[in-house]
Amino acid sequence: MNICAYSYEEYLNLIRSFHGNLAPGMIIGGFMVDLAMKNLPEGEFFDAICETPVCLPDAIQILTPCTIGNGWLSIINFGRFAVTLYEKYNGKGVRSFLDTKKLEYWPEVRDWYLKKKKKNEQDTDLLLEQIREAGTGLLGIQLVQVEPEKVRRKKMGPVGICRVCGEAYPLRHGESCLSCQGDTPYTAVTNVK
Amino acid sequence: MNICAYSYEEYLNLIRSFHGNLAPGMIIGGFMVDLAMKNLPEGEFFDAICETPVCLPDAIQILTPCTIGNGWLSIINFGRFAVTLYEKYNGKGVRSFLDTKKLEYWPEVRDWYLKKKKKNEQDTDLLLEQIREAGTGLLGIQLVQVEPEKVRRKKMGPVGICRVCGEAYPLRHGESCLSCQGDTPYTAVTNVK
Repeated sequence: MNICAYSYEEYLNLIRSFHGNLAPGMIIGGFMVDLAMKNLPEGEFFDAICETPVCLPDAIQILTPCTIGNGWLSIINFGRFAVTLYEKYNGKGVRSFLDTKKLEYWPEVRDWYLKKKKKNEQDTDLLLEQIREAGTGLLGIQLVQVEPEKVRRKKMGPVGICRVCGEAYPLRHGESCLSCQGDTPYTAVTNVK
Repeated sequence: MNICAYSYEEYLNLIRSFHGNLAPGMIIGGFMVDLAMKNLPEGEFFDAICETPVCLPDAIQILTPCTIGNGWLSIINFGRFAVTLYEKYNGKGVRSFLDTKKLEYWPEVRDWYLKKKKKNEQDTDLLLEQIREAGTGLLGIQLVQVEPEKVRRKKMGPVGICRVCGEAYPLRHGESCLSCQGDTPYTAVTNVK
């Protein structure tokens, strides 16, 4: 049983080093990316859409060339556990998702995924065992047509210097940067050097 | 000259394998994360804020334990090239940013960063050379107080099954999932299995 180019154990080690802990969603995510990769339509350049910010983006970043920082991975927060890989020019893609109808065979996975059990009631060993046994058996696959311009990162456009903070920012944001317009998470800022 | 735990050349190789190409922003990002790490306030658990989705999130994901998927990295799209590392409980943090006043000494970096030259007019070798020479000399550093609840990923909350697509989704989104409410990037979906 492989996850893309890795053995199962190698993939678990990649999870530990990149994501930090062996989250169930990272393991299912590995099977999910693997299944999508095996069902790619024809084409050369594939971008990724992840429909949740939880765990799954890291499986995509570990297993495909698509990352947040290079812009080939877009996250749309539908809160659905699903990944789409699509040809970046024509939008033809494949979508791999967690199929809730298939959860009935794997009760510990079902109770974890649908939040039927509190964390301290879960049997982590059994959960990870069922995920491994189920593999791609938890998943469904669809062919999709993507509108790339709906998900792709917007270009930054012309750049200016914010007259409040003095940093560069996209001029389309207005006369000063969004942080200086008040949308800031910082309540105090002290220059050090 | 090191970038966190790596030599400069090792870091360039990590960029190539994770991000794909030696983007100037990834190299500056490495210096930026390194500078922030060296100026951390006291504390044990640090989360990250990245003020742009371009390049910098990948430098953070390569060099710190914070990733998009584990929720310790938040991206706020101010379009400013800056990273903040903050203690996750008390919000005390350090912010490293590209200081536009310091760009004057590095004209090729300035012209690239402020988009004064088109891509085909840039001298890539000179640009990368100036970035390496400048190192943390392009950067400023600030102590900041963060409001963690303003940036932290929201909890998913109770989960239901969407009555349209049959997939699990956060009930707080309404009576069906956001994709089935019409906010979808897919114009056609065909079930395969």
